[in-house]
Amino acid sequence: MKVPGLIQFDEWQDSYAERVVSMRTSAVRDLFAAASRSDIISLSGGMPDIRSLPLDTVSRVAADAVRTEGVAGLQYGNTTGREQTKELVCRLMEDFDILITTEDVTITTGGQQVLDLLGKTFINKGDIVITEGPTYMGALQAFSAYEPNILTIAFDEEGMQTTVLEEELKRLIAQSPSGRHGVKFVYTIPNFQNPGGVTMSLARRRHLLELSRRYEFLIVEDDPYGRLRYSGEPVPALRSMDENVIYLSTVSKVFAPGLRTGWVIAPRPVLAKLNMVKQGTDLCGSALNQVIVEHYFNDTDWRGELSRMCELYKERRSAMLEALKEYFPPEATWTHPEGGLFVWVTLPDYVDTPQLLSAALDRGVTFVPGDGCYPGGSGLGRNALRIAFCYENPESITEALRRLGAVIEDRLALYRTFIDAGVL
Amino acid sequence: MKVPGLIQFDEWQDSYAERVVSMRTSAVRDLFAAASRSDIISLSGGMPDIRSLPLDTVSRVAADAVRTEGVAGLQYGNTTGREQTKELVCRLMEDFDILITTEDVTITTGGQQVLDLLGKTFINKGDIVITEGPTYMGALQAFSAYEPNILTIAFDEEGMQTTVLEEELKRLIAQSPSGRHGVKFVYTIPNFQNPGGVTMSLARRRHLLELSRRYEFLIVEDDPYGRLRYSGEPVPALRSMDENVIYLSTVSKVFAPGLRTGWVIAPRPVLAKLNMVKQGTDLCGSALNQVIVEHYFNDTDWRGELSRMCELYKERRSAMLEALKEYFPPEATWTHPEGGLFVWVTLPDYVDTPQLLSAALDRGVTFVPGDGCYPGGSGLGRNALRIAFCYENPESITEALRRLGAVIEDRLALYRTFIDAGVL
Repeated sequence: MKVPGLIQFDEWQDSYAERVVSMRTSAVRDLFAAASRSDIISLSGGMPDIRSLPLDTVSRVAADAVRTEGVAGLQYGNTTGREQTKELVCRLMEDFDILITTEDVTITTGGQQVLDLLGKTFINKGDIVITEGPTYMGALQAFSAYEPNILTIAFDEEGMQTTVLEEELKRLIAQSPSGRHGVKFVYTIPNFQNPGGVTMSLARRRHLLELSRRYEFLIVEDDPYGRLRYSGEPVPALRSMDENVIYLSTVSKVFAPGLRTGWVIAPRPVLAKLNMVKQGTDLCGSALNQVIVEHYFNDTDWRGELSRMCELYKERRSAMLEALKEYFPPEATWTHPEGGLFVWVTLPDYVDTPQLLSAALDRGVTFVPGDGCYPGGSGLGRNALRIAFCYENPESITEALRRLGAVIEDRLALYRTFIDAGVL
Repeated sequence: MKVPGLIQFDEWQDSYAERVVSMRTSAVRDLFAAASRSDIISLSGGMPDIRSLPLDTVSRVAADAVRTEGVAGLQYGNTTGREQTKELVCRLMEDFDILITTEDVTITTGGQQVLDLLGKTFINKGDIVITEGPTYMGALQAFSAYEPNILTIAFDEEGMQTTVLEEELKRLIAQSPSGRHGVKFVYTIPNFQNPGGVTMSLARRRHLLELSRRYEFLIVEDDPYGRLRYSGEPVPALRSMDENVIYLSTVSKVFAPGLRTGWVIAPRPVLAKLNMVKQGTDLCGSALNQVIVEHYFNDTDWRGELSRMCELYKERRSAMLEALKEYFPPEATWTHPEGGLFVWVTLPDYVDTPQLLSAALDRGVTFVPGDGCYPGGSGLGRNALRIAFCYENPESITEALRRLGAVIEDRLALYRTFIDAGVL
C-alpha cells in the first residue's frame, strides 16, 4: 500500500492547522485499494452491491433528467437543495412516520456532508460528543476535524446501553465546575449499526429520548440502513417520536452512492445554521444528481429493486452467520444483525486485529480492524473486527471466513497453550 | 426576503460553535432568490449563461456516461477522484502550460470545496490569510469558518498591488514578537478577478512569486475564469511559473455548474493533507458527475461551445461598459475587464451601496453591494458595487444600468448641493 508523503520531504509541515496533525486516513479507504486486487475477497468495504442495478433504466433516467429539467439541472442551485428533491424526501420519510415539509430538510452531498456540517456548526475544540462505541469511522473522521472530546458508550444486542449513557452524563455533570455535562450531541445509528449490526430496541430509544429531554442534549440519528431489514420487525425512528431529533439519511444504500445525495432533517433554527454553514462549504450540491434521484424514485420500480437487493443481502448474511459458527473458534463472539451490511466480531483481549490484518491479506481476505471504529488513542477495539456481508457472494463469504478462521485459530492456538500452562 | 430563524425562538442558540456566531449568509445568495422574480434584471449573480448549451448533446452524454461506465459511475469512488477525470484535467491544464500528472491533482465538488479544504487544512484561529480586496465572497465565507484574520490588498488595473503586499509583510514581521509574518497563504484570482474584473500583469505575477519565495508563504491561485478572455493577450498562470503554487479551477464556467466538478493542483505533500481532510468531509465526490464531465470534454465540441459563449459575453461586456459611460455619473469609476463576468464600480465615499440596493430593487435591478466582498467588519467597499454582465442580454444590461444610473444620480444630486455649498 502506498503511504502518501512518506518519502517526500514536506517543506510545509509547519504550516498545517492543528486539527490536521493528528488526523489519519481511514484504514477502510486504504483497504478499498487492496480490495480491488482480483485475488482478494473483501469483507472490509461498506459498498452496497449495485452490480444488479438495471443500467438501461438508470441510463434512461439520466438522459431524461437533462432533457426534462434542462438548464435547471445544470445551473447553480439553492444551497439547501432543489424543492422537488425535498418533496421526494418528504414522501420517502412518510414510510418511517417522519412527517415533515420541505422547510424541514436540506439536501446534501451524501450523509457524510451532514456529519461534517454538524461538526462545523456545533463543535468547539474540546466539546464533548457522545457516540456508540464502536461507531462509524466516517463520523469519527468528520467530527474529529473540529477537535471534540469523543466519548463512546458500548452497545449490546439492543443497541446503545442508555443506562451507561445516563451514568456518563451524571459523571460529566459531577466533574464539571459549572455543573453542566457539556455534551453537544449524542450521535447514534439506531438501525443495523455500523459497524455493530445491532438495532436499538424501542425501550432504549424511549430511554434515550427521555434522557435528551431531561439532560438537554441533541440527538443525531444517522439512518442509512433503515430500509435494509431482512428479519424482525421495524422499530420506530427516533425522529418519528421527537421533532427535536436531527435525522440524516442517504440514497447510497437504496439506490447508488455515486449520486452523493443525502439529506438532513433538523429543527428549523438548527437547519438555518446548517444551511448557512453549508453555503461556505459548497455553495450548493449537484442539481443534476438531485434531478436523477428524483426521476429514479418517482419513475422506476425502486421498491422492487430494493427488495431484490435485500434478498441478496439476506442470503449473504445467513452465509456469514453460518460460516462464523462453522469456522470461528469458540472464544469468538459476534452480533446477529436483522439487517444492514455488517457483523461485529469480538475476540479475546489478547488478540490484536490490526496485526491480524496482514496475515489475513496474505490469505486473500480483508476486514476492518476494530480500533478504527473508536476515537483515536482510546486503545479500544483492538480485539474486534468488522466484517461486511454486502459485497461478496455467499460462496466467497464462506471461503473468506474459512480462511480468516484459520488465521485466527493460528493466533489462538499459541495463547491456549500459555493459558493451559497457567501463564496467561 | 425571508430571513431564516428571525421569528422562531432558537432554544439551541447556546449550543453552536463559536465559528458560527459571526457567520452571515451571502447577500449574493439571497439576491439569487430576488433575481428569480421575472420583473427583475439581475446584475448580481455570477451564474454563467448556459441557456444555449446543447441539451440534446448533454442528455446523450449523461446516458452514455451511465451505459459505458456502468456501475463504476454509480458506486463510491476514490476520495481524490477518478483517474480518468484526473487525466482529463492534466490535458486541459496543458492549455495553460501547467504540466502535471494525475498524482498532482484531486477532483473536488466545485472550486468551492477546495476553498473549504484549504481553510480546514491550513487555518488555525487567528492565522493570517491575505486576499485581494475586494475578493470572492465565497472564499471569504469558506475561510472565515476557520476564524483567520483576513487582510486585504487593493488591486488596480494590473491586479493585486504587490508592492503594498510586500509592505504589509514587512509590517507583519516588524510587529511580530517572533519575527514571523504568520501568513498561511495569499489567495488570488489573477484572471478577470471576482469581483474586480481585473487581471494581474506578468510583472506583478513575477513579483508575487518572488515575494512568496523570499518571505516563504504559499500562493493559492483560483482560476475559474481563465478561459473567458474576450480581448488582450493571455498572461501565464502563476502555477506555470512555479510548481509550489496551489492552483484550483472548475468546469462551472466552461461547461456547467450543476456538475459541481472542480479540481486542485498542489505540491504532493500538501495534496496528501488536502486528500486526508477531504475524506472526512465527503468520502468521495460524485463519480457520475465526473464521468459526465469526461464524456463532455472528450466527446463533444466543447471548445466550439465555449467560444460561442465567449462571443455572447463579449457583446454583453461591451454593452455594460458603454452603458456605464452613458448612464453613470462622472463621480463613478469602474474597471475594464478583458474577460470574465464582472465589472467593479467605485462611487464617492459618501455613497452607501448596501442602502442603494433597496432603491435599485424598487426599480427592478439587483447588484452586489461592495461590502460583501471584504472581510466582515472591515467597513470597506460600502461605496462600491459588483455588476455582472454574464446573464442578461445587451438590451437588458443597458436598461438595468440606465435605471441604476438614475438611482445613483438621485443620491449624488443631494450630495452635490452640499458640496457646492462647501458643506461636504
